Amino acid sequence: MSAMGEGARRTWVPGADGSPWGLANLPFGVVRAPGGPPRPAVRVGEHALILDDLARAGRLPVAPDTFAAPVLNPFLALGEPTWRAVRAALGELLRAPRAPGREVSAALVSLADVEPALPVTVGDYVDFYASREHAANLGRLLRPGQPPLLANWRHLPVGYHGRAGTLAVSGAPVRRPSGQLPPARAGDPPGFAPEPRLDFELELGFVTGAGPAGGGPVTVATAARYVFGAVLVNDWSARSIQRWEYQPLGPFLGKSFQTSIGAWVVPLAALDSRRVRGPAQAPAPPPYLRAPEPRGLDIDLEVALMPAGGDAEVVLSRSNARGLYWGVAQLVAHTTVNGATLRAGDLLASGTISGPVRGTEGSLIELTRGGAEPLTLPGGVIRTFLQDGDTVILRGSAGPGVSLGEVRGTVLGSA
Amino acid sequence: MSAMGEGARRTWVPGADGSPWGLANLPFGVVRAPGGPPRPAVRVGEHALILDDLARAGRLPVAPDTFAAPVLNPFLALGEPTWRAVRAALGELLRAPRAPGREVSAALVSLADVEPALPVTVGDYVDFYASREHAANLGRLLRPGQPPLLANWRHLPVGYHGRAGTLAVSGAPVRRPSGQLPPARAGDPPGFAPEPRLDFELELGFVTGAGPAGGGPVTVATAARYVFGAVLVNDWSARSIQRWEYQPLGPFLGKSFQTSIGAWVVPLAALDSRRVRGPAQAPAPPPYLRAPEPRGLDIDLEVALMPAGGDAEVVLSRSNARGLYWGVAQLVAHTTVNGATLRAGDLLASGTISGPVRGTEGSLIELTRGGAEPLTLPGGVIRTFLQDGDTVILRGSAGPGVSLGEVRGTVLGSA
Repeated sequence: MSAMGEGARRTWVPGADGSPWGLANLPFGVVRAPGGPPRPAVRVGEHALILDDLARAGRLPVAPDTFAAPVLNPFLALGEPTWRAVRAALGELLRAPRAPGREVSAALVSLADVEPALPVTVGDYVDFYASREHAANLGRLLRPGQPPLLANWRHLPVGYHGRAGTLAVSGAPVRRPSGQLPPARAGDPPGFAPEPRLDFELELGFVTGAGPAGGGPVTVATAARYVFGAVLVNDWSARSIQRWEYQPLGPFLGKSFQTSIGAWVVPLAALDSRRVRGPAQAPAPPPYLRAPEPRGLDIDLEVALMPAGGDAEVVLSRSNARGLYWGVAQLVAHTTVNGATLRAGDLLASGTISGPVRGTEGSLIELTRGGAEPLTLPGGVIRTFLQDGDTVILRGSAGPGVSLGEVRGTVLGSA
Repeated sequence: MSAMGEGARRTWVPGADGSPWGLANLPFGVVRAPGGPPRPAVRVGEHALILDDLARAGRLPVAPDTFAAPVLNPFLALGEPTWRAVRAALGELLRAPRAPGREVSAALVSLADVEPALPVTVGDYVDFYASREHAANLGRLLRPGQPPLLANWRHLPVGYHGRAGTLAVSGAPVRRPSGQLPPARAGDPPGFAPEPRLDFELELGFVTGAGPAGGGPVTVATAARYVFGAVLVNDWSARSIQRWEYQPLGPFLGKSFQTSIGAWVVPLAALDSRRVRGPAQAPAPPPYLRAPEPRGLDIDLEVALMPAGGDAEVVLSRSNARGLYWGVAQLVAHTTVNGATLRAGDLLASGTISGPVRGTEGSLIELTRGGAEPLTLPGGVIRTFLQDGDTVILRGSAGPGVSLGEVRGTVLGSA
């Protein structure tokens, strides 16, 4: 690696240098040509480099069939030293002015000729509640007049398991779910209808490798070894269904209809320079959650909406993941402190990320104060919750050279 | 099939006729010889019939590689008509006095020579709260002086997602988890220690096939087509960890350290004669949850404990799954009503099954009234919650010809 750092290295792939998809990024995903199988790939500029061809040709430091599966899981199972070695090898293969060789150039396809597929078969999907501002916003809405944070919130990262089987990749539409709605008055029967309060949630997810051989908890000091990379997450939420069902065991159908994730998983190695101190933690968490600084990640986030019937985007919210109270190492340590194992391809998501001021909220229920203050958008468009035909686009950026891409989804009417 | 019914058919497998593992049962599982790979099998008496050998020899109506995987998932993905056809073919191959043929007899191994492995890679594990008596018992303990059932309970089967990656097969020990414990007084910091209130939960689980092609909700009328079979479940629970963490998103580390399931999945087809009317439902649930009767399953259940240091079992509880308020068709319909898909190998569990009287409770927290009334067992042994070295054995029986086997696990001290 040159003394100028990764950002300064150049590639022979046209258009990649100077873009957020140059050699400093190299995110992993899965793409599919029309009629073809899903194939693991690395994104470079507006191209995808198909990894199976390179591995079979002996150009990557892995077994030839590592990328033969339609998902990244076998690669994730190999662990951090291999992840780093493959990243370094890809950097060399892609570096200018080196002539790429026929095998390498043949493995390059234009993103215009493929579509993204789900990059990982997720074993367990855990969704946390790691943004203090988000938890406090919801606490104020749901428990007015009481302390906005529950007693446990500052002591542990509250989390729950979501449905892994309904994860979808960016671009997949989301069908408005139907379900039981809260009774109009206590004692009345519940309603049943398409969800009237369909919402998005802006989140950052972390895709894991397998936990330590032999099991046992992962410490905050070693957690980064077990995290492959970061991906944007939209945890679509049916607020009315959730409100009626969630006591006492937590969210179920209000979330399980779909969760969308980005097509490209950005390796933690590409985010090294974006590590920043996290928010101060008082009271100090228990020792197993005391994470070395810098525990935060400086990733700019935004939520855009393209209202139904139009083709113009409006930005609803801008924030940054550095405000997350609980960092990724703490999420991993907490998940495993009871002896629970990690599998290659688990997904740990932050929960909705909201900032401290107006315009930084990561969901409509927060942006509209529980629906009480509808948003007036350009052209006189009014939104409280999502309408059929609306398109939500979440975006993330870790500086000029490293994009997290987007998670995009359009709302379809109920079946 | 003879007019005498399945129960009267005889097999050439020694010792199987007259046992609860004869031709009327034929449960599916996975076994492993020492040093060998896990292989799908059907249990007959005290033997396992290895299915891969039979499928490759063309003796089963499936593709030759259907049972090549170390789990049942590829078979589960084939759907109910294939499940029935394979069950019928196995019945013929095993039927006396027909000479089995060398291929079939060679596929038979003694259970003494193999050990069970996890029968299924579970995609999503949903745990419900479907026993009214259990929900009411916990309600009385957690919210004394208030109605024992929350407002939503009679309208929908409350449920949440558990951790699929820590499912274990019967026989696997369970390590006592450590974690944050509730503060002694409000405002104090939480403790951190090995869980002092480790408990079992007696449950019945249902292993699914894939949902309907094209997605969409599964109706109560068709739900049985998507359920392969039933298996015993012990949802080990860390009561103190759970009490501190579970607001507002439900159980997480209090459950995720391990859930044990039986080695043998009994096909729904073997339980047909055990269908019984479920408890009356008032108020009537919404139309999508109005299940045709008989919606219940008459399965006798028991919990036995072998206290540490001894080798004598004591039965702690006896009950029956027919008391479950929400039947399996209702659990499937509810899980999918919002559009969520089922994958082959999903697991839907009932939640703790408790009956209406003393001695029918499915957990220690109920048997001991929240720990206030310790159990005095033979030999002067006292138990409030589980101690290291205790062995818990759950058993299920659907009549003399059909056993659900057991789920057995011994508590290991914290790491």
